[in-house]
Amino acid sequence: MTSNRLCIVLVATRNPLNIGAAARAMCNFGFQHLRVVHPYDVAFREARSAVGASALLARAEEFETVADAVEDCTLVVGTTAVGHRQIQHPLKVLKVGATSILEELNAPPNDSRRVAILFGSEKFGLSNEDMAHCHWLMHIPTTVEQKSINLGQAVAICLYELARESGNVPVSEEPSPASAEEVERVTTVLLDALCASEYLGAETVDAKEDVVRRMVRRMRLSKEDASTWLGMVRQMLWKLRTKH
Amino acid sequence: MTSNRLCIVLVATRNPLNIGAAARAMCNFGFQHLRVVHPYDVAFREARSAVGASALLARAEEFETVADAVEDCTLVVGTTAVGHRQIQHPLKVLKVGATSILEELNAPPNDSRRVAILFGSEKFGLSNEDMAHCHWLMHIPTTVEQKSINLGQAVAICLYELARESGNVPVSEEPSPASAEEVERVTTVLLDALCASEYLGAETVDAKEDVVRRMVRRMRLSKEDASTWLGMVRQMLWKLRTKH
Repeated sequence: MTSNRLCIVLVATRNPLNIGAAARAMCNFGFQHLRVVHPYDVAFREARSAVGASALLARAEEFETVADAVEDCTLVVGTTAVGHRQIQHPLKVLKVGATSILEELNAPPNDSRRVAILFGSEKFGLSNEDMAHCHWLMHIPTTVEQKSINLGQAVAICLYELARESGNVPVSEEPSPASAEEVERVTTVLLDALCASEYLGAETVDAKEDVVRRMVRRMRLSKEDASTWLGMVRQMLWKLRTKH
Repeated sequence: MTSNRLCIVLVATRNPLNIGAAARAMCNFGFQHLRVVHPYDVAFREARSAVGASALLARAEEFETVADAVEDCTLVVGTTAVGHRQIQHPLKVLKVGATSILEELNAPPNDSRRVAILFGSEKFGLSNEDMAHCHWLMHIPTTVEQKSINLGQAVAICLYELARESGNVPVSEEPSPASAEEVERVTTVLLDALCASEYLGAETVDAKEDVVRRMVRRMRLSKEDASTWLGMVRQMLWKLRTKH
């Protein structure tokens, strides 16, 4: 994905914390271009001067109109909570919309495609006039009771969805599982310990052996844990035997 | 999904805005149980008394220790930015971890499974002691440059991922596409108008007819837009013809 092709456009944002939160989410997911359209002046200045404000925020571009902000973009997507307003545009849920956006971002390198995603003000969202610049609208599915998502959280969720399928994911560090032999070694020592402790008697051990064997398998032991268990049970067994 | 089975547990949160943001995201995605473990006292009181604080926040339960907060849970998942610390736990990326969590949430109704997802403090995340209560850890893949996600945004992203596949998604309102007949009607009137305006001459019209036909098809017209275009071009054609 050429993340360089995506602009996040904040329209008429009022709260400096939200501009900062949008910028931070962009850093988290590797997007660089932030544009603001007639923000509440104080908000933009405060966001820029906040402690820890990023280089990304310092580079953010300011525009007078939505038309100016999306001028160089080949796909313009609006975001909406689908509230009271009658929507005049095709509407895609985020995971479907993200697929379309990624097709643009994945275009060949010499291609001049650029995508803008627009987010409206905290109170009113995008106006019908703002939306008229959009090819289609995208929204994050929510409960009916609380449809309005906080601006900073909405930007974070959209960018997460775009980055979700990208290669940029560290490998999961699952511990390597114990082999059947290692698991069986734990089982045998445990059975010995259960006999030594008289949890199992001479007449019950055969009947219970498979029960114990299955129980040990359900532990899904890692190599390391199998070795630790073996040590612990062996020690108990030794102690049990030396007591007699 | 039985969303009622999930608890969000905020451990040692400092900023009241983050507690409020977590509560709001829970309302957005339909989760009800918020628990806090020794929050910075002022933060919890401020979050509760904030304008627009939700019923969910008012119902949030406070606990002294992580052990108390997860006591009734059968699966405890910690979240981590995978920073400097050596991780001693299995680690799953969010989309994989969410699948495991949903298996628990989708268990039969009479089952007593409950899941807790733990989020650490803004500055330090979860401590090793907190993590020892977890079955495994989950993390949101980010860029290497900015691994730390804002707490409110992290909660929102995790809950979005859990709700992502659930049925609770409004139908996308794509307009119905124009039929071939409607598209051809636009094409014919447009060709007439291009001739009437002398954009096409008697000797070029046959050569260009297919070019125009393909171009109109690339517009992927909706039923409604086809009818609007037809009206617009017909009007131009009429005006062009009455001028002669």
